[in-house]
Amino acid sequence: MAKEKLVKEITSMDEDFAKWYTDVVVKAELIDYSSVKGCMIIRPYGWAIWENIQKIMDGMFKETGHENVSMPMFIPESLLQKEKDHVEGFAPEVAWVTHGGNDKLEERMCVRPTSETLFCDHYKNIIHSWRDLPKLYNQWCSVVRWEKTTRPFLRSREFHWQEGHTIHASAEEAQAETIRMLNVYAEFAEKYLAIPVIKGVKTEKERFAGAVNTYTIEAMMHDGKALQSGTSHFFGDGFAKAFGIQFTDKENKLSTPFQTSWGVSTRLIGAIIMTHGDDNGLVLPPAIAPIQVVVVPIASHKAGVTEKATEVYEGLKKICRAKIDLSEQSPGWKFAEYEMKGVPLRLELGPRDIENNCCVIARRDNGEKITVSLDELETKIPELLAAVNEGLYEKALNRRNTMMYDAHNMDEMCDIAENKPGFIRAMWCGERECEDALKEKAGVTSRCIPFEQVNISDTCVCCGKKADKMLYWGKAY
Amino acid sequence: MAKEKLVKEITSMDEDFAKWYTDVVVKAELIDYSSVKGCMIIRPYGWAIWENIQKIMDGMFKETGHENVSMPMFIPESLLQKEKDHVEGFAPEVAWVTHGGNDKLEERMCVRPTSETLFCDHYKNIIHSWRDLPKLYNQWCSVVRWEKTTRPFLRSREFHWQEGHTIHASAEEAQAETIRMLNVYAEFAEKYLAIPVIKGVKTEKERFAGAVNTYTIEAMMHDGKALQSGTSHFFGDGFAKAFGIQFTDKENKLSTPFQTSWGVSTRLIGAIIMTHGDDNGLVLPPAIAPIQVVVVPIASHKAGVTEKATEVYEGLKKICRAKIDLSEQSPGWKFAEYEMKGVPLRLELGPRDIENNCCVIARRDNGEKITVSLDELETKIPELLAAVNEGLYEKALNRRNTMMYDAHNMDEMCDIAENKPGFIRAMWCGERECEDALKEKAGVTSRCIPFEQVNISDTCVCCGKKADKMLYWGKAY
Repeated sequence: MAKEKLVKEITSMDEDFAKWYTDVVVKAELIDYSSVKGCMIIRPYGWAIWENIQKIMDGMFKETGHENVSMPMFIPESLLQKEKDHVEGFAPEVAWVTHGGNDKLEERMCVRPTSETLFCDHYKNIIHSWRDLPKLYNQWCSVVRWEKTTRPFLRSREFHWQEGHTIHASAEEAQAETIRMLNVYAEFAEKYLAIPVIKGVKTEKERFAGAVNTYTIEAMMHDGKALQSGTSHFFGDGFAKAFGIQFTDKENKLSTPFQTSWGVSTRLIGAIIMTHGDDNGLVLPPAIAPIQVVVVPIASHKAGVTEKATEVYEGLKKICRAKIDLSEQSPGWKFAEYEMKGVPLRLELGPRDIENNCCVIARRDNGEKITVSLDELETKIPELLAAVNEGLYEKALNRRNTMMYDAHNMDEMCDIAENKPGFIRAMWCGERECEDALKEKAGVTSRCIPFEQVNISDTCVCCGKKADKMLYWGKAY
Repeated sequence: MAKEKLVKEITSMDEDFAKWYTDVVVKAELIDYSSVKGCMIIRPYGWAIWENIQKIMDGMFKETGHENVSMPMFIPESLLQKEKDHVEGFAPEVAWVTHGGNDKLEERMCVRPTSETLFCDHYKNIIHSWRDLPKLYNQWCSVVRWEKTTRPFLRSREFHWQEGHTIHASAEEAQAETIRMLNVYAEFAEKYLAIPVIKGVKTEKERFAGAVNTYTIEAMMHDGKALQSGTSHFFGDGFAKAFGIQFTDKENKLSTPFQTSWGVSTRLIGAIIMTHGDDNGLVLPPAIAPIQVVVVPIASHKAGVTEKATEVYEGLKKICRAKIDLSEQSPGWKFAEYEMKGVPLRLELGPRDIENNCCVIARRDNGEKITVSLDELETKIPELLAAVNEGLYEKALNRRNTMMYDAHNMDEMCDIAENKPGFIRAMWCGERECEDALKEKAGVTSRCIPFEQVNISDTCVCCGKKADKMLYWGKAY
């Protein structure tokens, strides 16, 4: 009863996916709206997810030799303007600081929308010789982009992210770093978030402002839309030239270095919600779930139940992130509450279970319930957590495969785009006009030119001319 | 030779303490100056210290039941203005955002100088019943205060900190939380930073804008000046009333809650530098040192040295944060380099040591060298790290005791203030005029009314009237 009541509070996915999403982020207590338009308050449960993401990813960055630094949050206007494409891309959407206290600033500054310019400014100070290269840096921070329409985690004026920035003696090394970090992102998404991703390169139109090439991982959400989940940029020596960064190479000649940058953000939390969530709320991959197992005592007024449940909980704490709910709410209310919060496993323990030295474990991903001996928890819990992760990945992969279509011409493209949510594979000649036409006529954007090419046909889906590139197209967040 | 050369590059403490300080922060590669006036770039070595501080402290916060959250970085002007004393204290020193992209904002926003107003705004949304209390929150972030004169770590326009914010059903509970967190700060400073601190309450003049009481931990730097190293504020119900936060209490009556906030910042890194540093550079307490032991092979061109040193290093990595320097620089250069960087222990290993199955370990804090068997490293290294920490604490405590003076009247106060760097203990009647006069005539400010009172006399050092409060006075950063 209690469960039904709570579940009724969120809109069903099929009824209104956007409404379902905002219901989930609020009801699962991930965020609260703030008085600051377009910015969100990330509540303890939401922030704990981000902390878990940070911890795993930071470990991966450090293993690949990266060091964390901290740059100022402001960029003087003159610094932002040094790289032409970059400033054109970002200037229209930055927040400008014009006054310090009561005084007008001599030069206005923006709050960083991204920090390439600041890193270049620093590189110029510290890089002189080939011995100073490479520098493999990263920072965890928040950035600001003055978006017109915002949605929690997906697009907000301030968002949290990490931005990796590296600088190398050769183009080859920088290019290899760009791909290496894309692979780190893909591994992270698939292994820890259970989200299958497509790796590829963006078209020129979709490139980061100032980049020679932008690589991306693209994920498919429950509604068939694409979510760009991480990007890695190769800059060539464009920024270095604009900022006058030079070093003495091994032959004692002045040379220009090559750069990369790469980032993922709290968007990943949006990706988790929209990939795994269901009509009962959030479904969290175990690796990043703030609570991996919740212990719910049944008939806890009966002698010994609370004590035994607490004992089980104390044991669980040693092998996973566990919680026990001893509040006076009914078991039904608690079931619904932790389903809403996406806790991967629920452990139920009542008087009869205790008699039999066992408990019931329910999986959040598929609702399965199994009876487990209390003596086997130490091996069973990690197994079940791994099974949930695998189950989530398989389900997401199956959905993506099911919602994947091929288009050979514009009629097919428009038909699929209008009637079938999902990704569309189609050939492209490489011309910007065709890309624009696809956006205008079919309402789709190019997601990426995937590394894994499949030959759909020999001709461009738009103009019919010769084409040797297969792209993923779709509607995107 | 190499060592002497490098050491010459930093100014000696006695010659110019301020110059010594900036030499150290730059030469030890803690920071780089940026094009953003008054803001600093925290380089990998500096940021690693902050990450170590964060890790330990975050554990202490979580152990005491606090949860991390993330508030927006902006505060709309109308929100900042809600609490009268608070806005008066902070408005003159905030950075104002007036434009988003090309559009002027309807209401300007400041970059948060501190987040009480944002937390209150959020509390109002989520607190309705006594069941919702207390909320024990913390956030790690950076804040901005438009300071006129800045110095790395000590006073910069942007600085990193944590700000704890809690809200409680009763004044007693909030007051207890204020003191509890002050004690956490003191424990952290003394146990992990080896910095002795004095706990006490600030005078009204030195109180945080909007607080009923501000508690502080005060540390003495090498030059005798005071550094306020952490503060904890009791707000009473002032903010709650200004923001209209109310809850239904257990008797079903509407009631107003009570609040606290508390913070420490990257100032702590300044405190570490100025408490423990010497003319050879930084001296880091082991708990927060990015490198705890550096392995320097001696005569590494000789057969087997590099291999053995690497083997020792691999063993060390399992028990501490270790580094091996296999570069082609001379041992002398390396000694100076890691002394500059404040690495607590240096492990030297040459052909003769290898023959004898031992190594030489040098302590950074006192220069002592001891020979240690390679078979005993696993027990000896933790012992030595603990000894360094203890040595640093004792040295700092002895210095503070030596540089502590009592003043019974204004003549004594002025004489000590002018001639003897350090803290001055003196009685105070409680009147603001006397506090102002002490600042004007002797150039000292009140540091705190310490919890541990010592009766110097019965009369105010300034006006000679009856006084029952002993205060610490001094010059401060």
